[in-house]
Amino acid sequence: MRAPTGDSDDLPLFAAELHARLRARAPRVHCLTNSVAQAFTANALLALGAVPSMTTSPDEIGDFVDSAQALVLNLGTFNAERRAAIGVALASAKSRRLPTVLDPVFVDRVPQRAALARTLVAAGMEALRLNAAELSTLAGAADDAALAAFARAQRTVVALTGATDRIADGERLVRVSNGHALMAQVTAMGCAASAMVAACLAVEADAWRATAAAVLMFGVAGEIAAARAQGPGSFAAGFIDTLAALDRDTLAARAKVTIEDP
Amino acid sequence: MRAPTGDSDDLPLFAAELHARLRARAPRVHCLTNSVAQAFTANALLALGAVPSMTTSPDEIGDFVDSAQALVLNLGTFNAERRAAIGVALASAKSRRLPTVLDPVFVDRVPQRAALARTLVAAGMEALRLNAAELSTLAGAADDAALAAFARAQRTVVALTGATDRIADGERLVRVSNGHALMAQVTAMGCAASAMVAACLAVEADAWRATAAAVLMFGVAGEIAAARAQGPGSFAAGFIDTLAALDRDTLAARAKVTIEDP
Amino acid sequence: MRAPTGDSDDLPLFAAELHARLRARAPRVHCLTNSVAQAFTANALLALGAVPSMTTSPDEIGDFVDSAQALVLNLGTFNAERRAAIGVALASAKSRRLPTVLDPVFVDRVPQRAALARTLVAAGMEALRLNAAELSTLAGAADDAALAAFARAQRTVVALTGATDRIADGERLVRVSNGHALMAQVTAMGCAASAMVAACLAVEADAWRATAAAVLMFGVAGEIAAARAQGPGSFAAGFIDTLAALDRDTLAARAKVTIEDP
Repeated sequence: MRAPTGDSDDLPLFAAELHARLRARAPRVHCLTNSVAQAFTANALLALGAVPSMTTSPDEIGDFVDSAQALVLNLGTFNAERRAAIGVALASAKSRRLPTVLDPVFVDRVPQRAALARTLVAAGMEALRLNAAELSTLAGAADDAALAAFARAQRTVVALTGATDRIADGERLVRVSNGHALMAQVTAMGCAASAMVAACLAVEADAWRATAAAVLMFGVAGEIAAARAQGPGSFAAGFIDTLAALDRDTLAARAKVTIEDP
Repeated sequence: MRAPTGDSDDLPLFAAELHARLRARAPRVHCLTNSVAQAFTANALLALGAVPSMTTSPDEIGDFVDSAQALVLNLGTFNAERRAAIGVALASAKSRRLPTVLDPVFVDRVPQRAALARTLVAAGMEALRLNAAELSTLAGAADDAALAAFARAQRTVVALTGATDRIADGERLVRVSNGHALMAQVTAMGCAASAMVAACLAVEADAWRATAAAVLMFGVAGEIAAARAQGPGSFAAGFIDTLAALDRDTLAARAKVTIEDP
Repeated sequence: MRAPTGDSDDLPLFAAELHARLRARAPRVHCLTNSVAQAFTANALLALGAVPSMTTSPDEIGDFVDSAQALVLNLGTFNAERRAAIGVALASAKSRRLPTVLDPVFVDRVPQRAALARTLVAAGMEALRLNAAELSTLAGAADDAALAAFARAQRTVVALTGATDRIADGERLVRVSNGHALMAQVTAMGCAASAMVAACLAVEADAWRATAAAVLMFGVAGEIAAARAQGPGSFAAGFIDTLAALDRDTLAARAKVTIEDP
């Protein structure tokens, strides 16, 4: 059931304002992320105006998180070093009330990643960004009802990205229909989206709006870059270009956003 | 001595058919590969239509290989974690009769990598992809006779890539003269080629034809992308674009393939 | 106080000659560098004509450094493996009198990295490449006087890159005003610059001139690529293209170099 609340009209302008805020404040975002995604994620954060750091060492991650404004925990290429680091990073984030985003990569293929993801969610994440297979593993299904119920039960924001993106916090649910099929043909796009959510949380206290704005920037940049691309290789570079150039008019003109009654 | 057997005429069409098959089946390819090559390799596999996974952790690699259709073992940036993981990955691949490709990166510079490569070859690889210096280290020389003898003795397919690529299985030898000098100026091109071989092995039982088709796709995409590139940076992106767009007519028109009597 | 010495006129031509020398000699440069920067750094070195290797394993790094012509030690994503490898790499470099470059990434955010950087500088580095925050951590300030005093006291060349780059060896100081703001929006640009310094040191005994030439190539390639870019994504690819195509006329026409009296 569609029930526009007025928020949907605001989201594009809010996202444009947040984009400007990121550029003005240049928040530090520490990414405990997989080795495949590190470079692309760092470039996506820089394009947004954030300052990325990427160490995965338990010896150093505390220093980085202590001087960061947001944290993303991505479970791709998870290993002994990352396992040791995640506890240090989380303890530092909790003691400083730092917004933290979980990207539970491939929990559908590795049972121990699913167990770790559940532990992290229970510890309190501001937001999760994942795909349908991953949400189904954690929440039993990936439809609107399961999404909203999981967000409500876990007291977190959940951003489910795919052909249509849905962002829920248990009370609110927004559907973003931007984006393009090429986004699924480039590695680390989802990982970069999760880091973008963390960057937005660094400068905005309403986690649902911050997450929705990040996903909207992600989708709009993706569809603009796709229209100019020759294929997935030029798309990846063009996505970074577009992300850096996003402005209010573009977001307002392009946004396809619907607020749903969950 | 050149002795066309009819197979050379078929290879471009076979490669085009295999390209379509990859897109239809979307095989999962697990890559135990070096940290430099991970992102480019993942993007090359996605461009072909395969689904890459990249963990190098011994704790997780078994789960990934158990649900994959092919495995590539790349010895670049080899370390303690990869050493622990390779045994787990190989055991899983063997128990499931999964096609496995070895890329013995820089065995000419590290004696213990050469020793490991010999152990892996003895354990039974469906294919090796390497350059002349690497083959010389393992086989004593890199001419046609050494290539064919090594493939025959080790009961594997060997793809030697360079200015001209040669693919042998001990009985058959094909020469692919596609490609471009820019391919040697981009890191991870060879690593991506090895992963492409694994993807083709995932959907084709004749390992020699699958390997030759992968090398042909690689060479044709390289020469098309080179013609459009401004240099090695734009070439890398253009290679991924071209790989995603390869079709039957392009492969048939471009292929420079000769079957040799080994 | 500006005091042209004649060297400033020579630097662009010297850099062009060095660019040709790199292409002719293809020196091997081993990079103990962070996981974010590995692929971009390898591609920058290949574009210059050098041959990169990237292992971070203590078991293998000795073999690579033993057969290399220069070494770069980059402290990004520093971890237990890199800590074990750095001693092996340094011992091999010292015993072979191999030019070694230190890139003390984020010493301003991690005290133990600063301590390690001080130890490495004391062990004798041919050059350091860093930014103002990093130099301030190591030298107390980042102005010309601090730069020159630090270089003199530590008997090394220091390349401080930023809006204007300064390269000092305690007796000489050159200011390079090439470059573009987009260079700060792409991850691993500084890391690549440090590796370029190592490549130049591999083929030139005057460490100050080699370092200045590397920084000049870096800045000129950056500003040319920026003029053609649509944003930071296309800039990164264009930077590699431009680096591969640099020639004498371009360097002579573009160079903005001033020799200062330190």
